[in-house]
Amino acid sequence: MIISPALEKLIQALTRFPGIGKKTAQRMAWYLVSQDKSFGLELAEIIKQTVENITTCSLCNMLSESDPCPFCTSSERTDSLLCVVESSADIQIIENMNEYKGRYFVLGHLLSPIDGYGPEQIHSAQFLQAIERFHPQEVILALKPSPEGEATIHYLCELLKDKDIKVTRLSTGLPFGGDLEYSSMLTLSNAWKRRYPV
Amino acid sequence: MIISPALEKLIQALTRFPGIGKKTAQRMAWYLVSQDKSFGLELAEIIKQTVENITTCSLCNMLSESDPCPFCTSSERTDSLLCVVESSADIQIIENMNEYKGRYFVLGHLLSPIDGYGPEQIHSAQFLQAIERFHPQEVILALKPSPEGEATIHYLCELLKDKDIKVTRLSTGLPFGGDLEYSSMLTLSNAWKRRYPV
Repeated sequence: MIISPALEKLIQALTRFPGIGKKTAQRMAWYLVSQDKSFGLELAEIIKQTVENITTCSLCNMLSESDPCPFCTSSERTDSLLCVVESSADIQIIENMNEYKGRYFVLGHLLSPIDGYGPEQIHSAQFLQAIERFHPQEVILALKPSPEGEATIHYLCELLKDKDIKVTRLSTGLPFGGDLEYSSMLTLSNAWKRRYPV
Repeated sequence: MIISPALEKLIQALTRFPGIGKKTAQRMAWYLVSQDKSFGLELAEIIKQTVENITTCSLCNMLSESDPCPFCTSSERTDSLLCVVESSADIQIIENMNEYKGRYFVLGHLLSPIDGYGPEQIHSAQFLQAIERFHPQEVILALKPSPEGEATIHYLCELLKDKDIKVTRLSTGLPFGGDLEYSSMLTLSNAWKRRYPV
């Protein structure tokens, strides 16, 4: 028996989020209706406001409430470092680390011609404009170690090779606290190859 | 650096849900803004509609879009069984099992005088009215095995003791697929006491 068509609809909408399964969606929906109405109404309003105000920064491609975004305009951030990420969400993760004070560029996708993501889809031309604008001394490619990530790193290195810019990528190896026995063969073999003197 | 005040607000609202930590909330918020605006607007509308339409069934106490709720009025469900649950969400879990076709009663809380949940807070008077209405042959107490659950079961049994109604509770023991070594001492000791011949 369907308990409530409205709740069913809400549960279905919630399961569209990545990482939210049916059980979590059900728990969220029931929590929502068991709270004071004001919580749900406020949440609905916040969601509406957020999606209506969000835009894409025309300089770095980041999802932001202003164009250009605060990262491109802030005088407290250095032009000498440019960090390249796959998505805007990655910026939040890097900002949480609280160590990096340079600029960003968001590719939007990793290079994957088979899925239709070529140089244009990863905004190569806009990336080169960002390089011209900031004249960074170092470009940090903070992309995930995967076939698509490697292809993208290779491609961006080619784009930058005549430009006298230091290009770096994040270290690969064992995750901190990770057991050897739970590491994939690729991770272990990579950590082995990149072993360094203590 | 705060990436977007609107997103921050959304992330904070999402972490109010049980089981949604900061990381999940961030992932959800970024997913929301990276989708077509229509997804967020539709979700906001669904949330608004749901909380505005939800009410409490005056017969069984369940959160529902109609009063009385479909479970109390459906002619396809038998009056001879009444299942007592702690919350409306539990009804969904029992319905998912697709085995039970009787009526429900929602207590709203378990008995816990120390937390201020006495007979009135668990809607005892309304529960007795439901008994008068449906005249069930069996009352199934589908409450969780915990000190509060036990107290509630004990209290409801007292309420029903002169009424010639069979009162049952859900079996306790090892969860299906659960390893002995991961069971709590209470669970194991209970399963031991309630062992039965094969």
